[in-house]
Amino acid sequence: MTLNDVVAMDVTDVLAPKRAEFVLPADTIYLDGNSLGCLPLAAKQRAYQVVEQQWGQDLIKSWNVHHWIDLPVSCGEKIARLIGAGPGQVICCDSISVNLFKLLSAAVMMQKGRSIVVSQQGNFPTDLYMVQGLQDLLGADLCRLQSVEDQHLEDSLTEDVAVLLLSHVNFRSGLVYDMHRLTQLAHAKGIVVIWDLAHSAGVLPVQLDACDVDFAVGCGYKYLNGGPGAPAFMYVATRHQDTIRQPLTGWMGHKTPFEFDAEYVAADGMARFLAGTPPVLSMSVLDAALDVFADVDMCQIREKSLALSRLFMRLVAESSALGELVLDSPADDNQRGSQLAYRHPEAYAICQAMIARGIIGDFRAPDIFRVGFNPLYLSFQDIYSSVRVLADVVASQAWREPRYRQRSRVT
Amino acid sequence: MTLNDVVAMDVTDVLAPKRAEFVLPADTIYLDGNSLGCLPLAAKQRAYQVVEQQWGQDLIKSWNVHHWIDLPVSCGEKIARLIGAGPGQVICCDSISVNLFKLLSAAVMMQKGRSIVVSQQGNFPTDLYMVQGLQDLLGADLCRLQSVEDQHLEDSLTEDVAVLLLSHVNFRSGLVYDMHRLTQLAHAKGIVVIWDLAHSAGVLPVQLDACDVDFAVGCGYKYLNGGPGAPAFMYVATRHQDTIRQPLTGWMGHKTPFEFDAEYVAADGMARFLAGTPPVLSMSVLDAALDVFADVDMCQIREKSLALSRLFMRLVAESSALGELVLDSPADDNQRGSQLAYRHPEAYAICQAMIARGIIGDFRAPDIFRVGFNPLYLSFQDIYSSVRVLADVVASQAWREPRYRQRSRVT
Repeated sequence: MTLNDVVAMDVTDVLAPKRAEFVLPADTIYLDGNSLGCLPLAAKQRAYQVVEQQWGQDLIKSWNVHHWIDLPVSCGEKIARLIGAGPGQVICCDSISVNLFKLLSAAVMMQKGRSIVVSQQGNFPTDLYMVQGLQDLLGADLCRLQSVEDQHLEDSLTEDVAVLLLSHVNFRSGLVYDMHRLTQLAHAKGIVVIWDLAHSAGVLPVQLDACDVDFAVGCGYKYLNGGPGAPAFMYVATRHQDTIRQPLTGWMGHKTPFEFDAEYVAADGMARFLAGTPPVLSMSVLDAALDVFADVDMCQIREKSLALSRLFMRLVAESSALGELVLDSPADDNQRGSQLAYRHPEAYAICQAMIARGIIGDFRAPDIFRVGFNPLYLSFQDIYSSVRVLADVVASQAWREPRYRQRSRVT
Repeated sequence: MTLNDVVAMDVTDVLAPKRAEFVLPADTIYLDGNSLGCLPLAAKQRAYQVVEQQWGQDLIKSWNVHHWIDLPVSCGEKIARLIGAGPGQVICCDSISVNLFKLLSAAVMMQKGRSIVVSQQGNFPTDLYMVQGLQDLLGADLCRLQSVEDQHLEDSLTEDVAVLLLSHVNFRSGLVYDMHRLTQLAHAKGIVVIWDLAHSAGVLPVQLDACDVDFAVGCGYKYLNGGPGAPAFMYVATRHQDTIRQPLTGWMGHKTPFEFDAEYVAADGMARFLAGTPPVLSMSVLDAALDVFADVDMCQIREKSLALSRLFMRLVAESSALGELVLDSPADDNQRGSQLAYRHPEAYAICQAMIARGIIGDFRAPDIFRVGFNPLYLSFQDIYSSVRVLADVVASQAWREPRYRQRSRVT
């Protein structure tokens, strides 16, 4: 695989023009869009409009004239298109953690007589923690976490299980779980299914409706490029919306919030899942960022995502210097999300040495160097350059510098 | 009271220079800072820094180099100074609704054998709704809302009450509740007290520590000028922090979030009340907005706030045109927050006619025209001009125009 081969891949890349819609950091190749997506130009412009005109000049009137009140729904509908959800099933609000609490509570309340919440042992910790928090509040008779290893997942789906809570793509390895099959298996046992799309929304074609999923949550700041800590989203299948109850019954979820009634009456549809006033600035920026997806198809994105990760894997495999790196992600395209995890005892220092050279990946404890691929702003040449620098860092042992071993608070 | 008298008040106003620290809307007098505060210049500058440099260029590194990870604490500590809280007791996160859920759950779990949550019948609805949501989840045996009229409040504090949940300042009338006395009465019966500071933080001197308050919540977008839907805050007295549990146990509240452990272990101190990833853009802007308070004293703010509302009341009372407006706020300075409510059967249309003339107040169902006073950017001449326009709108019956009666979605 030569540089010429890679240049040829960029020439035929139908998504290459999307790169111009982003502000990309100078002298940097950014392989951490799975942690925080890059800044879309449209998002930057919207941030200025919201601050200067909408907040600065129009102030409280903006709830009506600039449709702030509609942001949770308008963002939700833009996301719906990306995750295979028909209209009226996705709303933007709060964080994944808080949204999981709403859905876990709703699921536990609807699944009377069952208490177990099955999840992956290697799930992203917040998902497990939120079950633990609900268990602590309700007691283990009503809610009990059972986190299981992947090989026991299917066997654990028995008729005393209330909820199956799964991440679609594992945050470390990038392993993709079979949404259709697992949802079907769970439903056959009367189990309600919640999918966490943090590492798939915006980069894999997700088919929530077609897979008959009950509930889902996801994140606005990774592949959706909504900015740091962008609001999250939640999906509730239409068939459940009018019957389930969620406990975070804030005023924005009321049927008529501006009547200021003393009694809570849930709004129709997804609005009942709102709690407090949304962070308008952050949500407006996400709303603008989502427009990047308006003219692209998730299958195009998936195709390029796989091509990028295949290229990275191949270049690593071809490099004699990189034999110490152990791939911890599925080599099979069908089982791999849009990231690669490599194990190395010095993964932290290697990651830091790479960052010092302008190649931004991240470290995941205890020993993973992780790179993520956002097909909207990465080129094949970026991958080629990244692996060359990685080979140089490892071969030269540049990572041995003491400054690369000083742990930051956030990794 | 003549214009000259009012001009003289502006001349001697020690807070007058603060006005230059805000972007104020053109041709407008803004009497709705109690709903959404004006844009501080520092907040505007920070928004641009965060978008262009921190997100756009430094991306994921900003969690460390720009201290995003510290924002909940740094914002919290800036707010602590304004509400009479010593260090380590205030953190910025989520919305009032979500934070109330955490604290209500914590309080109910610590108050075993008691179930009643007493609140004001006229409290802001979300406070009541959050109790209803928790009641629905836990059952009335563990949590039961009892909303009472003000005259029965003290009598309702009996030994079967678990929690007293009160707004410090009523959102409609501006009535101030006696924090010290009510907290003492509640404690004498073993009741845990939660205060909602939505309409007092940043405009009244609040003394949480001195009043021995257990828990409090408050809002970033009103008198703290943190921008639309700015994150909220919560206060937990030091004595409770290590013993209480809250159920929204997201990863940001973990003792070592970047170890990605499967078991939740609560962080020390206030960090355990964090749930998901914070909306960094909105929280950064609030952080900058809070610096407006660095060189002012809450007593100066209170003094001017009362002078502004006294002037407004006096000018209304002196106007023969405004006899139809019925004051629904306490005339006594000690019982009044920083707002005034006037009842009028056509309050909605009057409010709209005022807005059309550049005087922004708001309407609260069913019949209240509400004006709020932020002493950091309002002048006494603003008040004079506002009441003149109000008198003209009422005397001329300008509000009768049909367009002023068309209800907006958000009021």
